[in-house]
Amino acid sequence: MTTTTKDYSINDRILSVLPLMYVGWSDSVLSPSEMKVIRNVISDMDFLTKEDKDYLHQWTDPSNPPSETIFKSWLRQIRSKASKLDDSEKHNLIDLSIKIGNVGVGPGQTSDRARAALLRLEKALVIDNHLSSGLLINKLSTKRKKPQSSFPIADLQATLDGAYAPLKDRIRKLLRDPVFELKHIPDKDLYRVHILGQMKALAKQGLSAFSFPEVYGGGGRHGDHIAVFEMLALADLSLTIKFGVQFGLFGGALFHLGTQKHHKKYVEAMHRAELLGCFAMTETGHGSNVKGIRTTATYKHSTKSIIIHTPDRSAGKEYIGNALHSEMAAVFAQLIVDNKNHGVHAVLVPLRDKTSNLLPGIEITDSGYKLGLNGVDNGRIWFDHVEVPIENLLDKYGSIDESGHYESTIKNPSRRFFTMLGALVLGRISVGLASVSATKKSLTIATKYALQRRQFGPKEDGPETVIMDYPSHMERIIPALARTYAYDFALHDLADMHVGDDGTDSRKIETLAAGLKSKATWHATETIQICREACGGKGYLTENQFAALKADSDIFTTFEGDNTVLMQLVAKGVLTEFKQDFHNDGSMAIIKFLFRKANYKVSEYNFIHKRNTDYHHLSSFEFIKEAFDYRLEKSLIKLSERMRKYLRRKMDPYQAFLKTQIHMIDVADAYIDQVTLKSFYRKIENSKEEVKQILTRLYQLYGLDIIYANRGWFLENEYMDGVKTKAIRRVRAKVIQDLRPDVEGLVDAFGIPSELIAAPIALSEFS
Amino acid sequence: MTTTTKDYSINDRILSVLPLMYVGWSDSVLSPSEMKVIRNVISDMDFLTKEDKDYLHQWTDPSNPPSETIFKSWLRQIRSKASKLDDSEKHNLIDLSIKIGNVGVGPGQTSDRARAALLRLEKALVIDNHLSSGLLINKLSTKRKKPQSSFPIADLQATLDGAYAPLKDRIRKLLRDPVFELKHIPDKDLYRVHILGQMKALAKQGLSAFSFPEVYGGGGRHGDHIAVFEMLALADLSLTIKFGVQFGLFGGALFHLGTQKHHKKYVEAMHRAELLGCFAMTETGHGSNVKGIRTTATYKHSTKSIIIHTPDRSAGKEYIGNALHSEMAAVFAQLIVDNKNHGVHAVLVPLRDKTSNLLPGIEITDSGYKLGLNGVDNGRIWFDHVEVPIENLLDKYGSIDESGHYESTIKNPSRRFFTMLGALVLGRISVGLASVSATKKSLTIATKYALQRRQFGPKEDGPETVIMDYPSHMERIIPALARTYAYDFALHDLADMHVGDDGTDSRKIETLAAGLKSKATWHATETIQICREACGGKGYLTENQFAALKADSDIFTTFEGDNTVLMQLVAKGVLTEFKQDFHNDGSMAIIKFLFRKANYKVSEYNFIHKRNTDYHHLSSFEFIKEAFDYRLEKSLIKLSERMRKYLRRKMDPYQAFLKTQIHMIDVADAYIDQVTLKSFYRKIENSKEEVKQILTRLYQLYGLDIIYANRGWFLENEYMDGVKTKAIRRVRAKVIQDLRPDVEGLVDAFGIPSELIAAPIALSEFS
Repeated sequence: MTTTTKDYSINDRILSVLPLMYVGWSDSVLSPSEMKVIRNVISDMDFLTKEDKDYLHQWTDPSNPPSETIFKSWLRQIRSKASKLDDSEKHNLIDLSIKIGNVGVGPGQTSDRARAALLRLEKALVIDNHLSSGLLINKLSTKRKKPQSSFPIADLQATLDGAYAPLKDRIRKLLRDPVFELKHIPDKDLYRVHILGQMKALAKQGLSAFSFPEVYGGGGRHGDHIAVFEMLALADLSLTIKFGVQFGLFGGALFHLGTQKHHKKYVEAMHRAELLGCFAMTETGHGSNVKGIRTTATYKHSTKSIIIHTPDRSAGKEYIGNALHSEMAAVFAQLIVDNKNHGVHAVLVPLRDKTSNLLPGIEITDSGYKLGLNGVDNGRIWFDHVEVPIENLLDKYGSIDESGHYESTIKNPSRRFFTMLGALVLGRISVGLASVSATKKSLTIATKYALQRRQFGPKEDGPETVIMDYPSHMERIIPALARTYAYDFALHDLADMHVGDDGTDSRKIETLAAGLKSKATWHATETIQICREACGGKGYLTENQFAALKADSDIFTTFEGDNTVLMQLVAKGVLTEFKQDFHNDGSMAIIKFLFRKANYKVSEYNFIHKRNTDYHHLSSFEFIKEAFDYRLEKSLIKLSERMRKYLRRKMDPYQAFLKTQIHMIDVADAYIDQVTLKSFYRKIENSKEEVKQILTRLYQLYGLDIIYANRGWFLENEYMDGVKTKAIRRVRAKVIQDLRPDVEGLVDAFGIPSELIAAPIALSEFS
Repeated sequence: MTTTTKDYSINDRILSVLPLMYVGWSDSVLSPSEMKVIRNVISDMDFLTKEDKDYLHQWTDPSNPPSETIFKSWLRQIRSKASKLDDSEKHNLIDLSIKIGNVGVGPGQTSDRARAALLRLEKALVIDNHLSSGLLINKLSTKRKKPQSSFPIADLQATLDGAYAPLKDRIRKLLRDPVFELKHIPDKDLYRVHILGQMKALAKQGLSAFSFPEVYGGGGRHGDHIAVFEMLALADLSLTIKFGVQFGLFGGALFHLGTQKHHKKYVEAMHRAELLGCFAMTETGHGSNVKGIRTTATYKHSTKSIIIHTPDRSAGKEYIGNALHSEMAAVFAQLIVDNKNHGVHAVLVPLRDKTSNLLPGIEITDSGYKLGLNGVDNGRIWFDHVEVPIENLLDKYGSIDESGHYESTIKNPSRRFFTMLGALVLGRISVGLASVSATKKSLTIATKYALQRRQFGPKEDGPETVIMDYPSHMERIIPALARTYAYDFALHDLADMHVGDDGTDSRKIETLAAGLKSKATWHATETIQICREACGGKGYLTENQFAALKADSDIFTTFEGDNTVLMQLVAKGVLTEFKQDFHNDGSMAIIKFLFRKANYKVSEYNFIHKRNTDYHHLSSFEFIKEAFDYRLEKSLIKLSERMRKYLRRKMDPYQAFLKTQIHMIDVADAYIDQVTLKSFYRKIENSKEEVKQILTRLYQLYGLDIIYANRGWFLENEYMDGVKTKAIRRVRAKVIQDLRPDVEGLVDAFGIPSELIAAPIALSEFS
């Protein structure tokens, strides 16, 4: 290996390996162990002779880099051969290598085997194929050709649509109807009328009835209701929310908190949008802490009626959707029977007569213009001793008997209240999915634009570069795409779990709904912003949809539960799940923890593991999964140790909670990341062969992106060394580059009809 | 130290140290070296006897923690004493300690010295005073008292306002006038008329004339113009931008690109808003790459005129502010004289006659509704062979002589163009400052709300916690406040440098303007979003201002230069500044770098430095500055090595640029962070004694926040160990807690009149 081989003339076979060697040497600092892998890969290439291998092996010694002269001679020979090729034959390094080396034509050879061998080398060298081919050959062309995806787009769309594909296709078709055309209507009153009309059109199609039993004219299929909501979020989000308020919240309260008498009387009129209603829970003074609302519902036995009353202005109902159009409200109030408060219950209260005049004792004001969702009529409501018959109490979980006594099957008022709040779980899953739909639409617009828009280029007078080819642009779009797929899979898993639940999993579902809603809506806010900026001034024009997408989805992070509060719920759920009782030291759970911790210590201080920078290791399912698992368990252990310490010192539990609040949010974050990764993995396992490879790449990117974003934590906790996190950066960048040619296929698979994409910048070339 | 002292009865002197010991032991895991510091601090406490010190010293041995029994007895004694105190005497740990210990009353003692000693101990233990006092004593009270700031608010405001304080006060007063009342006007045409009226009102006040010479009725003071713009951004941002387009861009083009004949004819009418004009540079096809615009200005010698022409639709001018109201445009076009293209020049082109009808050959369309800034009339403009006299060429940098020959004092067309673009520097500084103003307003609203709003609490029926007291809430608001101060100082330093520049510093100013504009506008987008979410549903109502703040400031990240493009300019500027020529290996600069690098190696591998977790070290000016310096220099070295390697390999320079693009952005980021830190430091040095302490705390938080955010990088590069980054987290959290009582003072010092805060949620209690 120390002999000089300068005289060795470079043949075609060697030439096929040189592009990778050239870029590899230029690109990165490779460790000795990586170099060893490279040597082995070269040894295994059966299209090379022994002499060829000897020549190449000498350039796998880190202490013996090729000289400048040798580099130049490689480049000269590569370019000379490449210049004779057609443009289509050199759009990536591997194709180029095969062509210039003319490999795979000897006896017993196939180009497939040569390609596989070169791909192995490319991975060992961690070369970002797409970008690096430009280092050798300038590929710029002015013509944009729609690239071939590496996977069948229809199959990936089918994977996303899942069991609801036929229904989703039906809604796609429906939403292309001019009735649902996206319009910017600045005047809120006109806009609200427009949205009300769209909502009634949906009811006419029967789309509002899926979650109610067939006996009331419904479909009896909860999953379909969720699918409808998810798809509607591709249209106007004001419509989505108006639909959710009327049929999900008001309808859900009627059905889930009411009993047969309410069902018979109201359900059908409600889902036909003949009876419009609202869900009056939130008060000015109490948003997150709903349990503390102060509206009262006082039972009066003499008249068998309930008096609904707002004690002061700040106890008024606020942000109530549908308040300006509703005939009736499901009002949440403290139920007082015989001077005893039984906690929050819901009561049906008529708001308006048939000619839309407010009834006595009801005061409603318009919430006015909002940051977004101006097609939804939000209002404030106050009640002044409004009397309704006892039948109006939605009495599934608590009722008043003939003799005027309160009774409930759930004795604990706190548990009763949380059971009643079960309805919010569906709302959270739905909002999570709606935010994924809005994210998909943004990414579709930004991606289509970035594939057409050109700015700057290698030469002043030559063609400019398509902006999607800038690494900074890929960095904005492609990891966000991977995360969007991840949240889509996780939320659909959760929706399925919810639909199939008989009550056994309700605690877990609550935790997951709170966490996935938070992560998916934060992801939406962040990604829509990134997409707007990625489209520059064009992204600022209302016609290109980001104005509506940003403004309308913005509230998602704080409604149906403020994300920061929800993430704390998640942490509590995770802690409970691990059966840890803080008031009770030394439970078995703790011992179990400490065992696991001891096990981690082994791998934690495993020097080789901490410094393993091999591509195959870093991109493997095992590595990614272990890193996610470790992050969750270790932060959980640290949090529980911290809490136990405070409580053992007899500190005020509330203050101890405050002191650990930020750690709780970290645990929740690690938990939801882990759950999301698991869903992604299951999705790959259960998917068709044709899409496994593309899904695996997205999985790798999702995983490495999260790990890289948390590298400070991993380094701090000595799970990895700096050499390893740097290698993760390289592998992550490579996966982004590898996904680049498929970026259009990945957004096409979202299956958004062009009428709903609507943005001229995304459609100009395809129309 | 090994003797047991259980029998030693705890006296008042010891009692004054116990609260800190108690919280310290409960709170964190202290390293042996930290314990040593604590021992020394205790030894120096002159109010303790030798026996007291021996008692306390035994609890500074990590291997000998106090038992549960001892802990409980400490707590019992602390609480028993504390219960006799008034609420106002125990609002933080140190006050409480002094009171219960009754220290500082002995001979030769002052409570000031005792307080100083306890503060040293608190720092050695890294205790977050504000939050931790709650661990001992529940401080919740329902009454909100406006807390006393630790500094005079007026002095801090004076520090922020600087030399422009009188002018800024004048504008504050002016903007309180009902003419400038913030209004939500949904219809864009009505809104535009409203803003036009406000702009004319400003011109009447003479605020539009500061940057023009007195001979044309101006003020001749550039700095004043910038101050006006900054202050206007506290009002309606549509007004700010309309003002900037008319007087800054159109006025700037007239004045800086034109010559005396233009000045005499137009400047006064322009700054009186009698001549409305626009700045027609950007084209649909060319935004960031302005040099490539395709509108032509062809000189016709026979008529001594210039023909302005748009070759095709995509070469039309786009997003042109003031386009619907303007009588005239400064049109940027390729100047062609005798078939030769001399590059981009500006020409004055009349658009409308006195009755507002479009002139022949001019086509203008409305850009329609935008995400925000709908009070600004943006439009698109196309020219069809529009002929204007040669006098209309703004000919400061390039003119056509009598015989029809082009002449310019700047021979290089590229340099000529960038000299002409100098006008954009002022625009970038101004946009940066405007974004800081918008950020200040958001933080003011969110802070005032968080100090009143209560949600959840220790007991179901008891008072709820003010949301500003949640660590997760402080985490959102307080670091953002520190960054806002930092960008304020850095941008004002830059503005001063620009105003005082005679041309020598113009390159540096360009680099800084590009970078600070980017960082400040990204910070604005992020912080306004955080503030909106921190106000929940209330933040979503238009009346509470975030709708306008978010939407109007959103474009700042991409106009006057797209941030991602600008950050690359910054990196190029930094590299140039270091005199590195990539085509020229081995320059002195490289050698200088490598020297520095060798020096770093020393501290880099200095084990003690890497693991130094002492509070005084971590919060010191030196540590913070060194970490910032190291980050910049090391990333710069890495970037330049990478680039040199590519170029030495004779790779295509454009592709090499693509490969290093993301590293360039990292370098730019590190550079602007360093520049910002330096400005902050200078500000502290030059400020009044009264505000030095609060500014130092903000500086510490700014510095530690940036370091902590980049801890992955510091760990990867082995500048710090995990123990150190964890200690940084604790110190950073402590500084946040220490700033908590001053949070209202910090926003009050922004000096935003309540009429401009406007949001009911921020004013309800103070009105």
